[in-house]
Amino acid sequence: MSGDKTDAADEPEQVAGNGLLHRRLFLTQGLTLAGALGVAGQASAQTALPKRPDWMTRQGAGLSGYGQPSKFEEGVKRLTGQPNPLFPSVGSTRTPLEKLNGMITPNGLHFERHHSSVPDINPDAHRLLIHGLVRKPLAWDMSALARYPMTSVIRFIECSGNSGAAKRNVPQTSVGQIHGLVSCSEWTGIKLSHLLDETGLADGASWIIAEGAEASSMVRSIPLETALDDVIVALYQNGERIRPEQGYPMRLLVPGCEGSVNVKWVHRIKVVSEPGDSRDETGQYTDLMADGRALKYTLLMDVKSLITHPSVSMKLAQPGVYEVSGLAWSGHGAIRRVEVTADGGKSWADAELSGPVLPKCLTRFRIPWSWTGGPATLASRAIDDRGNVQPTHEVAIARYGEIGAYHYNGIQPWAVAQTGEVANVRM
Amino acid sequence: MSGDKTDAADEPEQVAGNGLLHRRLFLTQGLTLAGALGVAGQASAQTALPKRPDWMTRQGAGLSGYGQPSKFEEGVKRLTGQPNPLFPSVGSTRTPLEKLNGMITPNGLHFERHHSSVPDINPDAHRLLIHGLVRKPLAWDMSALARYPMTSVIRFIECSGNSGAAKRNVPQTSVGQIHGLVSCSEWTGIKLSHLLDETGLADGASWIIAEGAEASSMVRSIPLETALDDVIVALYQNGERIRPEQGYPMRLLVPGCEGSVNVKWVHRIKVVSEPGDSRDETGQYTDLMADGRALKYTLLMDVKSLITHPSVSMKLAQPGVYEVSGLAWSGHGAIRRVEVTADGGKSWADAELSGPVLPKCLTRFRIPWSWTGGPATLASRAIDDRGNVQPTHEVAIARYGEIGAYHYNGIQPWAVAQTGEVANVRM
Repeated sequence: MSGDKTDAADEPEQVAGNGLLHRRLFLTQGLTLAGALGVAGQASAQTALPKRPDWMTRQGAGLSGYGQPSKFEEGVKRLTGQPNPLFPSVGSTRTPLEKLNGMITPNGLHFERHHSSVPDINPDAHRLLIHGLVRKPLAWDMSALARYPMTSVIRFIECSGNSGAAKRNVPQTSVGQIHGLVSCSEWTGIKLSHLLDETGLADGASWIIAEGAEASSMVRSIPLETALDDVIVALYQNGERIRPEQGYPMRLLVPGCEGSVNVKWVHRIKVVSEPGDSRDETGQYTDLMADGRALKYTLLMDVKSLITHPSVSMKLAQPGVYEVSGLAWSGHGAIRRVEVTADGGKSWADAELSGPVLPKCLTRFRIPWSWTGGPATLASRAIDDRGNVQPTHEVAIARYGEIGAYHYNGIQPWAVAQTGEVANVRM
Repeated sequence: MSGDKTDAADEPEQVAGNGLLHRRLFLTQGLTLAGALGVAGQASAQTALPKRPDWMTRQGAGLSGYGQPSKFEEGVKRLTGQPNPLFPSVGSTRTPLEKLNGMITPNGLHFERHHSSVPDINPDAHRLLIHGLVRKPLAWDMSALARYPMTSVIRFIECSGNSGAAKRNVPQTSVGQIHGLVSCSEWTGIKLSHLLDETGLADGASWIIAEGAEASSMVRSIPLETALDDVIVALYQNGERIRPEQGYPMRLLVPGCEGSVNVKWVHRIKVVSEPGDSRDETGQYTDLMADGRALKYTLLMDVKSLITHPSVSMKLAQPGVYEVSGLAWSGHGAIRRVEVTADGGKSWADAELSGPVLPKCLTRFRIPWSWTGGPATLASRAIDDRGNVQPTHEVAIARYGEIGAYHYNGIQPWAVAQTGEVANVRM
C-alpha cells in the first residue's frame, strides 16, 4: 500500500444526491478519503511529539473488582422524561443512542420501563410457576433452572411506545429522547418450550399469561405458538446475570415482540385457552387505528431505522466528508437493506450493514457523506428479509392514526442547516 | 406438541462414552428430556401458587441513570491474584468465567492487566500521533477521530500468559482463576489502515511500534502487514466508550493477537523498519521453547477451549442430565468444531456451537451429559477453520517447554468424583 495521494484526480463517485458516496471509498485510497481525512487531520495536525501529559507522571488507579465508566463520561446516562408526580418510580428511561456506537447496548444503559418499581428480589426465594392447562403444574427454583440447557441469542427489545414523540412531532433534544426505548443485548437462558415439555399441555391450551413479581404484577398474554417458538426465560444479559431493572433474577425474552411482553421478574406462567385481556393490555398496549378499531395483541414490532450520527441537536463543525451511521431492526426477521437519503427522499443509496446481521437484532448501518455546507435532509429507510419496508410518516399515520401511541415506525428525517445544526423535521 | 412422557421407553442415544448425549435430545421430547427435567423439577416441584413474596408488597427502587448488578450478585467480581507488594496497581484481574454465560463479557468484568496503573486520561487533552517512516506525521484529537468511518467487530482479547496455572498445574479454585485472562466484547473504532492512508508510508516501513499513555509507557511492535489488515483504534466497547482499565479513551484492537499488543491508552504509533525489542517484548512476552530457542513476536493466540460448566470447585447435586458448556476461540480464525469427552479422552462427541460463530471471537459450546454418579473426566478439544487442533498438555509442553509462561493452550480436563465434586486434573 502507498500513501501517495498526488495522482488522485477524479471526483468522488456519488451514489445518490447531495453528497452520498460509495461506501467503498472509505475503504480504499482516493481523493474522497484524502479530502475527508485531510479535513479531520487539519483540525489538529501536529508533527511534534505530544507533551508528556500529567497522567504519565504519576501512579494512577489500581485493579478493581467491577469496572465503571470514566468520570469524563458521567454525562452518558439513561435519559429520563417527566417524573410521575404520584409514583416517581413509575415511568421509563431511554438509551442515549447518540452517545453509543456498535449494536450492543451496555447493561447499565439498557432502557427501563416500570409499571410500579424495581422489586428487590432474593433469587433464593424466587420461584417460576407454570400452571393452568398443563398436565403437571411445576415450580422451579434457581438451582433447578440452572440444570436446564441454555440458549444464547443477541436480540433487541423495544417498547411499543417508542418514538411516540416523533409521531406527535414533540420537540426533543436528542435521538435517544425520541427513539431510545430500544436496546440490544446478548440474552442467555432456557427455552420456554423445554419447561412446557415438562409440564405438558392439556386440551384447549392456546395462550400463556405471564406475570411479573413486581408490586403491580404486570401481566401479558402470549400466543402458545410464540411461546413454543423462540421465547426464552432469560437469566443472563451480556454475559452476566440480568440487572434488577431488567428483571433480575429472570425475565421473558420474546424476540421481536413489544417490550412489555418480555415480562420482567417473571414468576408465574398460566397456560390458558384465551388471552387475559388484563388492564395492561386493554388500558394500554392497545392500538387505536385510524378507522376507529382497537387492535389488541399486535405483538410484533415493525421494521424501523434511524440515523444516530449525525442527529438532532448535533452540529457539524465544517463542510467535508462525514460518516452517516444509525441502527435498523425488525421484529419480523433480519434487516436486508437500509437506504439513506441526503436530499429529503429524492434519491436513496444503500448503506453498508455491519455484521453479523442477525434476526430480531439491532443492525448498525454506515455510509459516507460529503457535506458541501448547503442545506440537506438526511433520513434512513429499512427493509427486512420478509420484504417489509419502513413507511413514511404519512403512511404510518394512515395505518395507526394520529391518536394511537404504539408501534410508530415512520421514517425519521434530520435537517442539516447551513450552520451545520441538525434539527428534527418532517420529510 | 404433547407433554405425554408415558410412552417414552427408548434408552437415550449416546454419542460418546460415559453419558454424552446427542444435543438434539434437549430440543425434542423423550426419556432423556423427561429424566433430565424430571430430576430438576422434583428438586422443587410444587403445584400451589407461590406465597406472595415481600417484594411484591412494597414500592421498590426507582428509575436510574446507570444500572448496576443486583446486590445478590456482589460476589461476581474480577478475580485478583497475589497483590504486588511494591506496586499494588501492577498485575491482573481475571474474568470469573464460571459465573458467566453466553459469549459477551460485560464491561465491568473484562480482565485487567496493568504494567503500572490505570491513567486518569482527560480525553480532550489526549492525542494519537503517527510518525516515523511516514510521508506526513499527524496527530488526532478526539473530535478529529470522531469524523472517521467506524467499524464494529466482536472479538476476544486474551493475555498471552493466560492459563499458566494450568500449565504448571498450580491448584486453583475456579476456571476463572486458571483461564480468566480472556474476555470478549463488541469493539467499535477506526481502522488503523485509514489513518496510515492519511499519513502515507515512507520507504522501508515494515513494522509499527505502539505506545500506551500510562506511566510505564508499555510499547509493543506489530508487523505493518497486520497493522494494515484488521487492526482498529477502538473507542467503544459493548456500545459505550471504553472503560479506563481497558484503555480509555482509546486502545488498539489487534484481533487474535496476544493481549499486550492490544495497546491500551494508545497515544503514539511509530512506523519503523524493524521491531523495537522493547523491554516489554524481551524481558517478557518472549517464548522460551523446549529446545532453548527464545521466540519473539509470536503474536497470534492459538486455538483453545475449556469447559466452564461444570468446572473445578463446583459440585453436582445428584446424578442426572446436565448441560456441559464452555468457551472456544482461536487467533487464527473461527471455531469449526469443539469435541467433548466424558471418559478422559477415550471417546469424543461434537458439541453444539452457539451462533453467531465469528472469527477471533469466543464461541459458546454446549452438549448434554447424563451423569450416572460414577467417576468421569470431562474435557473439550477445539478445532479452528484453519485446521488447528487444540493440543494435549504433553504436546503443548513439547512445543513450548516447561518454563515458558506464554501461549499455553493444552486441553483442560475436569475430574468428577462420585461425590459430584469437580477437580482440576491431567488426562
